[in-house]
Amino acid sequence: MTEIDRLIHLLAQLPGLGPRSARRAVLHLLKRCEGLMQPLAQALSDAAEAILVCGGCGNLDTVEPCRICMDEGRDRTTICVVEDVADLWALERTRSFKGCYHVLGGRLSALDGIGPEDLNISRLVGRAEAGEMCEAILAMNLTVDGQTTAHYIADRLAETGVKVTRLAHGVPVGGELDYLDDGTLETALRSRRKV
Amino acid sequence: MTEIDRLIHLLAQLPGLGPRSARRAVLHLLKRCEGLMQPLAQALSDAAEAILVCGGCGNLDTVEPCRICMDEGRDRTTICVVEDVADLWALERTRSFKGCYHVLGGRLSALDGIGPEDLNISRLVGRAEAGEMCEAILAMNLTVDGQTTAHYIADRLAETGVKVTRLAHGVPVGGELDYLDDGTLETALRSRRKV
Repeated sequence: MTEIDRLIHLLAQLPGLGPRSARRAVLHLLKRCEGLMQPLAQALSDAAEAILVCGGCGNLDTVEPCRICMDEGRDRTTICVVEDVADLWALERTRSFKGCYHVLGGRLSALDGIGPEDLNISRLVGRAEAGEMCEAILAMNLTVDGQTTAHYIADRLAETGVKVTRLAHGVPVGGELDYLDDGTLETALRSRRKV
Repeated sequence: MTEIDRLIHLLAQLPGLGPRSARRAVLHLLKRCEGLMQPLAQALSDAAEAILVCGGCGNLDTVEPCRICMDEGRDRTTICVVEDVADLWALERTRSFKGCYHVLGGRLSALDGIGPEDLNISRLVGRAEAGEMCEAILAMNLTVDGQTTAHYIADRLAETGVKVTRLAHGVPVGGELDYLDDGTLETALRSRRKV
């Protein structure tokens, strides 16, 4: 296996890239050796060395605790519970949430054999019991597994006296009713709000 | 800009990846630091160091001349002329061509301001004039620019006495007539062969 084949093999393991697009990417890189390929190699090894998991919330950052947990301007008593770091990043991009986070590191899944002990749940309950939390916003995905996880966590948090909320469900912004699935429309109708 | 942002920015420059899929790829990498991220960084810098352009045909390889030009089992008098290394790789995957190659490094394009002097054409004519070539197979893409390039090269090679051929045009294997464009069907009809 040459260096080129090895590189294609590794790149093809990234989500969204298969063998064909990995080959294209490698050719693109080989033609831009100094401009892109060497900086990318450097950036990868820099990030691999610098990356840390925040002991507080489970976020990935280059400092520990992470920048969000350290931010004095944030409300540390409102905790948004998400499945994954990707969800945390998505919420951060809205720039509208000024609380802190708790990353579970996955969702409960009977099919994949993932139980509560595989997720970062007991630490969340610990944070609630320690009295450092007023509100827990459950922001799991609206999938079967995501909602199962949300129910389980709501049950666990019920005993701690923390206020538990969830994201609103309904018509997405820009959504056209005609193209929405029945489940979303039904939910939006049931959860209608006074204008 | 943190190490993570920098990595996303660089990955988003690969073909087929945008900012969104680059973020997904980076999260995938960060979770597989030792298994994927560090090997990928190493493979990138190894390949960046090892890569060489073959002075004979223009192929990219880790040895110079490239493995194809060095292969004693190949017919060095039959040269397949391609636009890009990607096309060479595609032809090699068929395992059916036992000649050698010549990579032009692009195609003539009035729009992009690419003229004959920007491509590896004079070296091809040089190879033909040196008498080391019996047949030149023009394997440019069947686009306007590709075929312009093919015509230009056929003209240049005409004086050298080398036999010039091109790939067959017609119905692709697995193609259904109903879904083919008119141009392809017309070409296939005009170039019909006796059964």
